[in-house]
Amino acid sequence: MALRLYLAGPDVFLPDAPAVARAKLARCSALGFEGIFPFDVEASPSASGSFEDGVAIYRANLARMRSADAIVANLTPFRGVGADSGTAFELGFFAALDRPIHGYSSAAEDFATRMRVLVGDDGDSVVEDFGHHDNLMLGGAVAAHGQWVTVADGDPAAMAAFDACLAALAGNDGRTRP
Amino acid sequence: MALRLYLAGPDVFLPDAPAVARAKLARCSALGFEGIFPFDVEASPSASGSFEDGVAIYRANLARMRSADAIVANLTPFRGVGADSGTAFELGFFAALDRPIHGYSSAAEDFATRMRVLVGDDGDSVVEDFGHHDNLMLGGAVAAHGQWVTVADGDPAAMAAFDACLAALAGNDGRTRP
Repeated sequence: MALRLYLAGPDVFLPDAPAVARAKLARCSALGFEGIFPFDVEASPSASGSFEDGVAIYRANLARMRSADAIVANLTPFRGVGADSGTAFELGFFAALDRPIHGYSSAAEDFATRMRVLVGDDGDSVVEDFGHHDNLMLGGAVAAHGQWVTVADGDPAAMAAFDACLAALAGNDGRTRP
Repeated sequence: MALRLYLAGPDVFLPDAPAVARAKLARCSALGFEGIFPFDVEASPSASGSFEDGVAIYRANLARMRSADAIVANLTPFRGVGADSGTAFELGFFAALDRPIHGYSSAAEDFATRMRVLVGDDGDSVVEDFGHHDNLMLGGAVAAHGQWVTVADGDPAAMAAFDACLAALAGNDGRTRP
């Protein structure tokens, strides 16, 4: 049975979300994986609604995560110095279940470098610096439970890094799994 | 035995982190709870080190979380439009374990309002708007597994909101639990 990969990330908020999602799902299929997106890739993802609508989407995503074997997360910084917070939440979910956690990004700089650009480096602001790509809970999760792939081309969808990450999962050679 | 509360949040990055942490632990004790901080409140928290040091802190925090009965998280926006990403990770961890998740904040505005300030409201940028206080995975987690308390005084430590949250947990009256 195909390994089920939960494809986390801020992709749902990209202007071309359905196209990005379909492309990532096709790449999963080509390598023998089953990709699971946290939204319906055939419909325009809904970004607004009632409070209860939001809770319902939360619950649906929890069920999708529980059904997955591993998470492959787009951790490219999104509207801030680090990964999308929903994606950070999802990494924690998989960590608690002790399932594999893989991350990929199109950003070259590490977390401390980006944070210093934001807050300055005046000695007063505490800036976490462990050489991780993001907050150490996220960086630690990927280091402890999987692998991190960066292809620093600045693409918000990080498609090249996603490809490289999947190829590594498929056996470090990118070929279709038997 | 006292309920063990994991006290998540960006407090470790505040200039007065040890004082904030000790104050929150004292409030826990006064209400009959045992607070657990993700850092040693008697030592100056370390914010830098080797990559492996970061992973070691990650692993130590995972053990602290597993030992806790519930999470009480400072979700006040931190260096961006939303909660600290490590805290978001920790909410997901408790969601997977199906343990209570409580959030508190000193910010008045909801997530969509803050996000529109950041990205503008030009119709091109997809802004999530479900009336939640943060990304719906965070807002949904608190709604589904606990309660949210806001005291909109702008305090980064959100001490008043923390007090109100603890009081609610102690029986909605703030008195010491029997």
